[in-house]
Parts: sequence; C-alpha cells; structure tokens
Amino acid sequence: MRISRRDFSRLGAMGLAARALPSSSFAEAPGDGKVGYCVIGLGVIADHFMRAVQQSSNSKITGLVSGHRDKAERIAAQYGVPKSSIYSYEDMDKMRENKTIDAVYVALPNSMHAEYTIRSAKAGKHVLCEKPMSTTVSEAEAMIAACKLMQVKLMIGYRLHYDPLNLKAIKLIRDGAIGTVETINGAFGFNAKPNQWRLNKALAGGGSLFDVGIYVLNASRYLTGEEPVKFTGVVSTIDHDGRFDTMEENVSWTLKFPSGVLATGSSTYGAQMSGYFKVFGSKGNLEMGPVYDYSGVRLRANYEGNSPDAPRVVIDETSQDQDPAQFTREAEHFSECVLKNQTPTSPGEEGLRDMQYIQAIYRAAGVNM
Amino acid sequence: MRISRRDFSRLGAMGLAARALPSSSFAEAPGDGKVGYCVIGLGVIADHFMRAVQQSSNSKITGLVSGHRDKAERIAAQYGVPKSSIYSYEDMDKMRENKTIDAVYVALPNSMHAEYTIRSAKAGKHVLCEKPMSTTVSEAEAMIAACKLMQVKLMIGYRLHYDPLNLKAIKLIRDGAIGTVETINGAFGFNAKPNQWRLNKALAGGGSLFDVGIYVLNASRYLTGEEPVKFTGVVSTIDHDGRFDTMEENVSWTLKFPSGVLATGSSTYGAQMSGYFKVFGSKGNLEMGPVYDYSGVRLRANYEGNSPDAPRVVIDETSQDQDPAQFTREAEHFSECVLKNQTPTSPGEEGLRDMQYIQAIYRAAGVNM
Repeated sequence: MRISRRDFSRLGAMGLAARALPSSSFAEAPGDGKVGYCVIGLGVIADHFMRAVQQSSNSKITGLVSGHRDKAERIAAQYGVPKSSIYSYEDMDKMRENKTIDAVYVALPNSMHAEYTIRSAKAGKHVLCEKPMSTTVSEAEAMIAACKLMQVKLMIGYRLHYDPLNLKAIKLIRDGAIGTVETINGAFGFNAKPNQWRLNKALAGGGSLFDVGIYVLNASRYLTGEEPVKFTGVVSTIDHDGRFDTMEENVSWTLKFPSGVLATGSSTYGAQMSGYFKVFGSKGNLEMGPVYDYSGVRLRANYEGNSPDAPRVVIDETSQDQDPAQFTREAEHFSECVLKNQTPTSPGEEGLRDMQYIQAIYRAAGVNM
Repeated sequence: MRISRRDFSRLGAMGLAARALPSSSFAEAPGDGKVGYCVIGLGVIADHFMRAVQQSSNSKITGLVSGHRDKAERIAAQYGVPKSSIYSYEDMDKMRENKTIDAVYVALPNSMHAEYTIRSAKAGKHVLCEKPMSTTVSEAEAMIAACKLMQVKLMIGYRLHYDPLNLKAIKLIRDGAIGTVETINGAFGFNAKPNQWRLNKALAGGGSLFDVGIYVLNASRYLTGEEPVKFTGVVSTIDHDGRFDTMEENVSWTLKFPSGVLATGSSTYGAQMSGYFKVFGSKGNLEMGPVYDYSGVRLRANYEGNSPDAPRVVIDETSQDQDPAQFTREAEHFSECVLKNQTPTSPGEEGLRDMQYIQAIYRAAGVNM
C-alpha cells in the first residue's frame, strides 16, 4: 500500500492521520464464508439492500446503524441481528470491536456519505457506499484516501454495472455490433414530492443531477468506455412552489469524449422521466428504456448483420429480474471482492470521476457547487 | 408595405434596389383557382413536391428550372408543363413574363436559396423555399427584405407545421395535458453517403445541424411555443474518411427557453438516427418517433386524466398518411395564402429565427459559420 503525502494531509485535515492504524479485524475471513454487513441508515434503499443480502449466497446482515432504536430493533429481529449489533450514529465507531461486521453499506443522505465512510474505514470495515459518492470532489478524494490508508475496500453502489442487460449493451458496443458510436442521448428524472432530503442542497449536495442524472452521466461513460473531456451545462427552475428553493429543478448537459462521441443528458425533479439511453452508431442503434428501474429493464438494438442471410439483427429483451436482484448482484460482487481480496468493478475512483464531471457540468452551467 | 432604409441597403448590396419594382403579375388571381408553381432544382425533394402538387386541390406545376434540359423536358411532359415554361438557371428571370407561374418552389442546395429566392421575388413570384432558409443570417434577412419589397409572399418549407400528428402534439401541450413542460430531448440524423452537396460546406452552409438538426431545433420551438434564449453546442468528427473534410460530423446542443424549459438536441451524418422527440411534463409525457419521416409518424402520450374513472390517458397513434401527403398539405397552405392574400404559418421570419439559433449553437461550439 502506498500512501502519498497528499493522502496524509487530507486525512490530517479530517483528524484521521494520527489514528491511522490498520484495523485488527481486517483480512480475517468470515467463519461461514459470508460477509457480514452493517447497514448505516434505514431508509428505502436500505430495505432493498437488506432484502437483497438475504437472497445472496455470500452475504448477511450483521449490524444496523440508525437514529431510531425502535425501528432498528424491529428490523434487527427480521434479519436476525442481535441487539448488541445495533448502533446509533453517535456510538457506531464501537463496531470496530464487532467481529461479525466485515463491511458497511452506507445508505444515508449524500452529505453524510463522506463522514460515515471514513468513520467506517477507521473502524476497519470495508465500505459499500451508495451513489453519488459524496457532495464534493474533495470529500470523494478523502474517502478514497481514508479507505486506502485503513486497507479497507471501497465500492460505490453502481448496481447497473452488475446488471446483465446493461452489460450486454456494453458488450454489443465493444464488439462493434452497431459500428462506430457517434452520439448518445439519455435522461432520468421524477416529479419529486416536497419535504424530502433530496430537495435540500445541504443534504443532497445539489439537484437532480446528483440523484438521478448521475445514472445518465455514468451510463454514457460505461457505454463508451471513455472519460469525457468537454462539458456544457444548463439549469432551470420552472416550478416556484418551494421545492426548489435551495437547488435547481432541471439540468441538461452535453459531454464530449476523446473519440469524438457526443452525449446529451437531462435530469429533473419536476417531471416523470422514465430513464432511457439511445446509442447511435454507424451500423445501427441500441437503446435501453426503462433502464434505471429496479426491474423490467429493456434492451432494444437494430444493426447490420454479418451475413446476407441476416441483413439486420433485431434485439428486444426485457429483464426477468425481480427486485432486489440488482442489489443482490451488487452485494455479491462486493462480498466476493472482500473474500478474495480483489478490487471492485466500481471502486471509489469510479465515484470520484462522476463527482468531477458533475462539478464540471454545474460549473459550465454557472452554478456554484 | 413599409421598407426600412436597412432593407434597401441590403437589397442595394445585392444589386436589387434599383430594380425594385412590383411585378406586373402580382396579385392577379389564377384563372382556374390553382396556384401555378415553377420548381427550381429537380432533385429528390422536388420530386416529392411535384407529386404532392399533383394531388392537391389548389396547386399545379406550371414551370421548371433546371441545368439539365433533357431531364426537365421529361418531367415537364409528365406534369403537362409546356417546353416554353422550362428555364435554365441563367434565363429563369424571364419567368417574370410568364403569367402561368404564380409562385416558385426553391429546392436547391442551401447556398443557392438566397440567390434564387431573391431572383424569383424580383420576377414577381411568391416563394416557397426549402429549409434551411439559407446558409447565413444575413442571407435570410436579405431574402425577407426582397420579398417584402417585391410584395411577394415568402414561406419556408416546414412541412411538419402542417402535419396533423405534430399539430396534435402541440395542442396537447398547449391544453396542459402533460402539465408544465420541463425538458425536451430530440435527435435526427443519418449515415451520409459520400460525394453529395450536403457534405460540402460551401453548398450546405454547415453540417447536419443545417439539414436534419434543424428539425429537432424547430420542434423544440413549436412544442414550447417559445424562442430559446441560451445556447450551448459541441461538435465532433469521428470518421476521417473524407466525408467530413469541410464540416463536422456530429453536433449536440442545449437550449434554454424563457419559461425555463431545457431542450437537448443531436444530429449526425455518421449514424442512422431515427428522428424523435420526448417531452417531459409535470403530469405526463409525450413523444413522437419516427417524427420527421415523410410517412408513418407516430405520437405516444401518457398523462394524468381528469377524472377518477380515467386516472391515466394513453395515446398511441400512427399517421396513415402516405407520402407525399405532408408536401400536399404544405403546398395547399401556401397556395391558400397566395389565393387569399394571407401570411403563411411558416413565413421567412420563422426560417430566419432558426438561422439565428443555428448560428448561436455553432458559435457556442466554437465553429465559424
């Protein structure tokens, strides 16, 4: 493990460097071959994750962190978690001594991702953190540095990186099925109910680009396999009904990739926007929609065949996965990385890049992040 | 008719002002109630138009302008045009004396639209000019000024302004069916064969934005009923196969409208991009695709109903029009304007606005127009 002076100074700034000792629990294989997860934050997405872990082959729920003891005890009973493995936000650092907990799942509002990832790393636990990774680039960098220093793994919850139909779309493109990719269009959004943390910039970091636009942005990266080098952005708020007092309602952007591929993206908190992407290539097209839902994602493609017998290839496939299968794949992947000491497909660096691009889009739009 | 000093100086610069006398043929109603068209340029789109006129109730083909006399004579025989009403590009100004010609249809490469519109106006003929109206803003302004000065009508060939399904989409939006519109996405493009005038910037004015992107741009305007106030643009060329030596292959852009609606658009000459738009509103969505084809355009919408009995309204309608029905509607509209001395729905000013916005997009992308 190499820790740069810069890593140290970052951690120092967060009061970590002095206590940066590898955890005693690190690298001890779980007795039953299952990675034990402590879930931090018991909201909607945590429920998906816990059900997913229950269905997984290599993972189990072994701890909970919540501000609501009653709720936590109810859920603990459901998943067979002992009361002694329920923590509050204040005392969760004690999980360092809990050998049944190998990893945490950070399912908190965005603004808390950095703090709880770093505290978990300090407790010697591997971290699976929901996306967006953080609310700023510097937080993301500190999270990566902390996990590196503490020799724990960090994975960001890009569940679609593990979805067979999204992977099939990527493979078709890499195999050249639709020829040279020229342009990608995509969008994702919803009409947000008032009074939720997503609409509070202090908790969310920013508007819909953080929460749902990040899917569109990330997809344009995994579809091209490239990193964008040029950014435009534009924002607006139409509905002055109080929901958008701290952030914008709509964001649209363009990205340019090194190969020349252009991508447009849109996200909103003001309209139902079933997630989709369309990829236009010299030999055909490929699209997914719905693509960011928990189930029922659909892939369609239409491209030139390789033989005169099959002049066109037409694909129309809908995933038969039932929720929470996407989360199960994600959890199983991270657990496998923990068990086999491998690097996750979507490590902290992947989340950092999205934070850098989100920042670039907002800057292009003239918005302070 | 009011002619500004600026109009005069523009026409003066084109050698027109001195000869700016109203044509003797102006305002004489055609004897049989049908407007006689002289078609300038006998390419693919002219063929659609001539077939369309033949099916129309109020229009007829009465003249041709072509550089290929043989081809022109063959087509003249087909449409019953006397040989005396066939002109070359050099002598077409003689049509001034031809009382059977009330209007012209300019179906030439973009760079020739201004010259032939102005020469036709000088000959006292009403002008229906294909889009894009011109290759520069100043050409478009000169075209409008010339037609105003010569008291002839000028319409730009936005055939979808007369398409019932596009009009239905607009009406649904105006009636508030999908609530407050937040975001619009769209694209249109094709994989261009080499060696055509479209790929020569001197003839086309620019890349795919002029030829096909203009549909996407124009649709975002007719869908919102607003004029964009903010522009971003990005261009790229991926296929260095000689086709894109004078212009870019791909363009993507964003527009911001005064209400706050954001629109993204893409066009390309490097991939088949079936034209589509998606409109996302607070109460539902509406999309068309294919939308810019000559037939088979399809409208889908899904939005909140007004009664508990009908919680959702779902529309899925495909046009039964056969080509060239769209051109027939366009021709009939212009002929009606000529016959009843009315202003067309898509006058020169409409084309000028698109030229201004195309220029703004290219400028934002750092491209010299």
